[in-house]
Amino acid sequence: MLYPRPLERLLAELEHLPGVGPKTAQRLAFFILSADKGRNSALAEAIRSIREQIRPCTRCGNFTDAEICDICLSPRRENGLMCVVAEARDVLAIENSGEFFGRYHVLGGVMNPLEGIGPSKLRLDTLKKRLHDERIEEVILALSPTVEGETTASFLGNLLREEQVRVTQLARGLPFGGDLDYADQVTIAGALRGRRDV
Amino acid sequence: MLYPRPLERLLAELEHLPGVGPKTAQRLAFFILSADKGRNSALAEAIRSIREQIRPCTRCGNFTDAEICDICLSPRRENGLMCVVAEARDVLAIENSGEFFGRYHVLGGVMNPLEGIGPSKLRLDTLKKRLHDERIEEVILALSPTVEGETTASFLGNLLREEQVRVTQLARGLPFGGDLDYADQVTIAGALRGRRDV
Repeated sequence: MLYPRPLERLLAELEHLPGVGPKTAQRLAFFILSADKGRNSALAEAIRSIREQIRPCTRCGNFTDAEICDICLSPRRENGLMCVVAEARDVLAIENSGEFFGRYHVLGGVMNPLEGIGPSKLRLDTLKKRLHDERIEEVILALSPTVEGETTASFLGNLLREEQVRVTQLARGLPFGGDLDYADQVTIAGALRGRRDV
Repeated sequence: MLYPRPLERLLAELEHLPGVGPKTAQRLAFFILSADKGRNSALAEAIRSIREQIRPCTRCGNFTDAEICDICLSPRRENGLMCVVAEARDVLAIENSGEFFGRYHVLGGVMNPLEGIGPSKLRLDTLKKRLHDERIEEVILALSPTVEGETTASFLGNLLREEQVRVTQLARGLPFGGDLDYADQVTIAGALRGRRDV
């Protein structure tokens, strides 16, 4: 049996979302079918308008609904310290750690030669300009520990060597709550190399 | 850090959906943020309009975008056979089994004295009327094996005793792929009572 056309359409649209298979789409659709119209309209409007309302900060590339984001504008952030991340979504992960108080620079991706993503696709011009304009003293590379992340980090390391700036990278090691038994060899090797006195 | 207001609003709306916590809402929101506007508009429109487009079939209570649903109208369904389910969503579960070719009647819930849901809240008048109009010979009660489902089934059993109709109920037993070890005692007791020759 097929559902009535409008319900089939809703299911198909929901299944385009990441992590939403047929069963989850069904559960969501039935919920939406029994929710009140005001609630559905609010959700629909939030989805429809988000691309018009959110844009990248023209300075750092973070999500913002203005020209320049709150973090770039905040007088309470530490000057001279910049954290480089691949995507705007990574900003929140760093913010949530509560350990970083500088500003951000979003590359807009990582280098991936196989997919033809070279340095020209990343926001590097503005990065260099900001180093001077904002008198950055330390750049923390906060890229994912993947082949692409490492490639990008080492490229940035070379690129920034000419600048008067310290370039650091997030530590490798065991994740909190992780089980030593289950840690892979690269993680353990990194944790050994980065070992610290107790 | 808070996200820009429109993004916060989208996250909040997404978190109202069942099974969607903060992490999932974030993943969905980031996907929607990077999806093209046409796709987002289609999803938004499907959500916004579903309550206007889908209504219960006036005959059986199944989902339909017309006055009467496809199953009620189909000349290829078996006459005289009716399956009673609690909710419209249960129709698909039965259809997918490929074992039932009669028509449906959706009660619109199950009896739940604690929540004040008595027989008057269920679609029983139309059920009785249909038994005569459609010359139903067998009513299959396909209600969930819960306390409420059982209560409703036994109530319906008594109610329909006066009618010239056979009333049956889905078999209890071990679910396919289930592990005997993990089956609860009520399931095993039901499977024993309903045992069949091999």
